[in-house]
Amino acid sequence: MTIYEASGEDSERAADKLALGVAARLSRYLQVLTQARKMGKETISSQELADYTHVNSTQIRRDLSGFGKFGKRGVGYNIDSLVAQIRKILHTSGQQNIALFGAGHLGTAIATSDIFADHGFRVVAVFDVDRDKVGSRIGNLSVRHYRELREVIDDEEVVVAVLAVPASAAQTLADDLVEAGVKVIFNYSEALLQVPPEVTVHTSSPAVDLLYALYFYLA
Amino acid sequence: MTIYEASGEDSERAADKLALGVAARLSRYLQVLTQARKMGKETISSQELADYTHVNSTQIRRDLSGFGKFGKRGVGYNIDSLVAQIRKILHTSGQQNIALFGAGHLGTAIATSDIFADHGFRVVAVFDVDRDKVGSRIGNLSVRHYRELREVIDDEEVVVAVLAVPASAAQTLADDLVEAGVKVIFNYSEALLQVPPEVTVHTSSPAVDLLYALYFYLA
Repeated sequence: MTIYEASGEDSERAADKLALGVAARLSRYLQVLTQARKMGKETISSQELADYTHVNSTQIRRDLSGFGKFGKRGVGYNIDSLVAQIRKILHTSGQQNIALFGAGHLGTAIATSDIFADHGFRVVAVFDVDRDKVGSRIGNLSVRHYRELREVIDDEEVVVAVLAVPASAAQTLADDLVEAGVKVIFNYSEALLQVPPEVTVHTSSPAVDLLYALYFYLA
Repeated sequence: MTIYEASGEDSERAADKLALGVAARLSRYLQVLTQARKMGKETISSQELADYTHVNSTQIRRDLSGFGKFGKRGVGYNIDSLVAQIRKILHTSGQQNIALFGAGHLGTAIATSDIFADHGFRVVAVFDVDRDKVGSRIGNLSVRHYRELREVIDDEEVVVAVLAVPASAAQTLADDLVEAGVKVIFNYSEALLQVPPEVTVHTSSPAVDLLYALYFYLA
């Protein structure tokens, strides 16, 4: 739920980078553009982007015009070039290898969907400690034993780890990941993870996202 | 990824409600407080909240002081009372019934975890159209056929639907849900959903969350 970080104009990190709000909006545009492209659309208007992102169209045009001229009046934005530009601005044009931990239902759902692949993330390994799972196949990967963590992270230059493990296992895993050099941990468990300042933890929080969405219906 | 909505000070909805940034930060505090409570903590300091939320501690104290005095110097905030207060402020103290669509790996992961239950959401029904799945058990629920949608939504007063279905099925499902009176759709598919303005769609986007987290490492 990166959202809240975006609303913190007080972040100390903001100074030398895109304003957090801008980076957040660009990521949001990227999501909708990627969805639209998958549905076969080639162009999109600022009004359509506004409808899907809940950012108003004036703000959208302002954000996008700041990075050069993509839009043509009456035609809209070319989706492919906009995706490429935003990914370049966000420094995420390249491919990132991901290691996934936990081969349960959630891990399987993640490994077999293309939600990450669509954005340049490639799941290069799935780990578990359960003997019944190690060696089994998920998609086109074979589940590996946890003890191979270090080797895989080095060999595949993994910077991002996704944790689909029980809360009770998450901190020990995070410690091992930090030691192995992982820089971004995407945490699907409910554990509050302690990591050094140079490591970023992003905790998935669908229930809180839902509370927040519900607020606008109930309030 | 409600995040971006939070950064849009331009939302037309903001006027008669909490500022979007405040609602977003409160939701974020709520997530960390709930995690901390599960880990057995009873109190939390504004500095600890700051470490986990990436909102600075001055902002946190300001946000929380606006709603009455919870914190005691040197002791920190009582977690239980803070959770209760924030949920009251966000109008989400009550219980909400959820209908879950899709009994695949993702649906199973959602239905068998307590991520929603911890925040007052109860999954009251799981639906699928696959004959092999209908009638099977997930946790303590029996998977129901999609044709029972209307009846369940009426009987259980469901306002929130969670979509763990393929993108190709999502729009038709959304149409049926809107017709049945659902007001909040939590969309795990990649489809861009068209809904009337009174219905809120929240699309889960882990890959974009990850791109955003990665931005701060790469930039």
